Amino acid sequence: MKIAPLSGFPEWLPADRIVEQRLLDTLRETFELHGFSGIETRAVEPLEQLLRKGETSKEVYVLSRLQGEEGQKAELGLHFDLTVPLARYVLENAGKLDFPFKRYQIQKVWRGERPQDGRFREFIQADVDVVGADTLAFHHDIELPLVMVDALSKLPIPRVVVRASNRKVAQGFYEAIGIEDVEETLRIVDKLDKVGPDVVAELLAERVGASEEQARKALALADITGTDASVAESVLELGARSELLDEGLDELVRLIEGANDLIEGSLVADLRIARGLDYYTGSVFESTVIGHEDLGSVCSGGRYDALASDGKKTYPGVGLSIGVSRLLSRVIGSGLVQASRKVPTCVLVAVNDESERLSASRTAMALRQRGIPADVSPNSAKFGKQIRHADRRGIPYVWFSTDEGEQVKDIRSGEQVSADANTWSPPSEDLYPQLNGEA
Amino acid sequence: MKIAPLSGFPEWLPADRIVEQRLLDTLRETFELHGFSGIETRAVEPLEQLLRKGETSKEVYVLSRLQGEEGQKAELGLHFDLTVPLARYVLENAGKLDFPFKRYQIQKVWRGERPQDGRFREFIQADVDVVGADTLAFHHDIELPLVMVDALSKLPIPRVVVRASNRKVAQGFYEAIGIEDVEETLRIVDKLDKVGPDVVAELLAERVGASEEQARKALALADITGTDASVAESVLELGARSELLDEGLDELVRLIEGANDLIEGSLVADLRIARGLDYYTGSVFESTVIGHEDLGSVCSGGRYDALASDGKKTYPGVGLSIGVSRLLSRVIGSGLVQASRKVPTCVLVAVNDESERLSASRTAMALRQRGIPADVSPNSAKFGKQIRHADRRGIPYVWFSTDEGEQVKDIRSGEQVSADANTWSPPSEDLYPQLNGEA
Repeated sequence: MKIAPLSGFPEWLPADRIVEQRLLDTLRETFELHGFSGIETRAVEPLEQLLRKGETSKEVYVLSRLQGEEGQKAELGLHFDLTVPLARYVLENAGKLDFPFKRYQIQKVWRGERPQDGRFREFIQADVDVVGADTLAFHHDIELPLVMVDALSKLPIPRVVVRASNRKVAQGFYEAIGIEDVEETLRIVDKLDKVGPDVVAELLAERVGASEEQARKALALADITGTDASVAESVLELGARSELLDEGLDELVRLIEGANDLIEGSLVADLRIARGLDYYTGSVFESTVIGHEDLGSVCSGGRYDALASDGKKTYPGVGLSIGVSRLLSRVIGSGLVQASRKVPTCVLVAVNDESERLSASRTAMALRQRGIPADVSPNSAKFGKQIRHADRRGIPYVWFSTDEGEQVKDIRSGEQVSADANTWSPPSEDLYPQLNGEA
Repeated sequence: MKIAPLSGFPEWLPADRIVEQRLLDTLRETFELHGFSGIETRAVEPLEQLLRKGETSKEVYVLSRLQGEEGQKAELGLHFDLTVPLARYVLENAGKLDFPFKRYQIQKVWRGERPQDGRFREFIQADVDVVGADTLAFHHDIELPLVMVDALSKLPIPRVVVRASNRKVAQGFYEAIGIEDVEETLRIVDKLDKVGPDVVAELLAERVGASEEQARKALALADITGTDASVAESVLELGARSELLDEGLDELVRLIEGANDLIEGSLVADLRIARGLDYYTGSVFESTVIGHEDLGSVCSGGRYDALASDGKKTYPGVGLSIGVSRLLSRVIGSGLVQASRKVPTCVLVAVNDESERLSASRTAMALRQRGIPADVSPNSAKFGKQIRHADRRGIPYVWFSTDEGEQVKDIRSGEQVSADANTWSPPSEDLYPQLNGEA
């Protein structure tokens, strides 16, 4: 049997899993501090649900039972994001949820894409969304990116810049300058960072019939950035005007100013952001890690006026999603963050002789009862060998039963002191594995 | 579009997810206290890996890409347990792991079975295993069930009884009394609780050609239980004897006595336990929840002398697995445990007027900075309505900005006091949602 990693399905060794787990814990803690409820949805959705957006259909993994009946139609697929499941969950449980419903969700998703750097077939997303019943106040557009700003700032990673635009600005502007195919224009402008302005201008001429002047203006719009109302002025200076554009600019300015009033430097307006996905209707967000711009956006999202609808009620929402695996693969792969040890164990209790294993186990039990992760040496080899067992795993303390009573050795310093398993405690920084690297 | 729950794919409302998350956290904390490293493996394995055990092949969900090439053979399936992935992970990373390798793993698994009470198609398992390289000391057979005893005792559930037997005892005994098809006999005796002794005797006669005397002895063996060496005496009194039987009895007595020496009442020998699965080679474990015996075993496992092998090295292991979803569906379904509120939020900051939202947000930020989960009222409705917003979710405190300064109200008692967001703290039991129910 061939045993080899599967391309696109990342797995971590135990020490790196400690880093991943710490990141996930930090996200969860932050989301809960902001009052978001954690939910977990099943990994599968009905295929018809997953295929509503034509664009993503190629990526869906379809499930079938090995012994399913002949000719049985496949009906289930693995979810490719956490937004489709959220929409379904809200409709399914609408009568039991309190709106506005604030939820976070940290789960694996699957996409059958060709794996490449930073793109996986199985990866973890961390989403926060707030969903209203029929209405959802605009201040949630300010709240949601700030939840992510708070969460990202607590991770041991370089600073992340969250950038925002507004779908209405782009659409209003394009329409005002006479471009008709707004969807396609958004998709083309979305490629700006990858292909550059000249190619974008060519594509605009070719695919949406844009004149030179129209292309120039679309590119000028995409060049506008800022952190206050001056952004709206810069847009208006380009000469286009429409009701939708005005509405979008008003929202964008309220968003940027509202966010920066609360946390200075938290949000930058960047009119380049287009977000190809067609369900966004207002604010849109992207973010890049400083020094790792090549990773692309690690936290994206936006406002959707109709996340879900059951015919009677419509559920608007706004939310963002962190691509945890993409972020993590960079953080771990580039050695930015490491765990201080490979195991949770703080103390290894040595065993003098197999006849003393029971007593060593009791010592470990006493330590654990006071919250100190402890393990018992798997053998009663010479002390040097038991210490090497601890050292290899990064376990900081070895506990000995000696003729002078119980003693504990810090194997990093060599210091050995008398100790009682019912009272001794390690310094708090040694209790659990620590992450080093930039904080 | 039809929106309906999928049978066999359980999902929880936010309040029940709090219960689930708390259970999972307790398991993880306990496993780490015992020095086990957390790993997470991808959800998929190569089909050939999943189908090695013929018995389970019917349950495998096979993956295919919606736009995969015509005639492309399915190569991946979702894992149906966490043992097959562990074996593969150990072989794949053998050069980078330290042995004995102690790992826990808490993940979803999938089985395409017909859903029924307590059986799901998607469910969470929590596994602990220790894996050796070529050898693995017997004392781990004692250690592993005690990790689970410790973990289960910390969950807010009725007491769980962990029972043990030894595959060598059953095999040695059956062979000694002249039964040849040991595998089939194990499978038949495994049904004892379900079908009763008469049917087992019939099946033994029919399928393995057992005489009345052989069937009687097999049933007598299955009736033996105990918590010390008397178990071995009871077995030997049945008159059968073989080297394998002696070896098994020696292990079983060491296991039971060793476990009960360390934690009294932790482990009961029960010769009825057969564990149909053919990879167990020594100790086997099952456990039932007192008062919920109909749930079946919620924590099972055993020793396997060859969990994995790469031709050069063999990796023996011993471990147990908790069926978290099965346990949880009973705990939640029967109302045994409930969360004290539906959201993480401890304090809802009221908003007098939309113009004061920024200030309310700053108050919430100050509370969060000191670890207090806080949310801001989504609207500036009358206070009564804002209090009902908190009450409906079980949020205990509402924060007001009044003419007399900042005040916080415990909406359960109605008590309202002056407070400063930079210093006020709730009683610790109000900080996070609590689980009530039996502990």
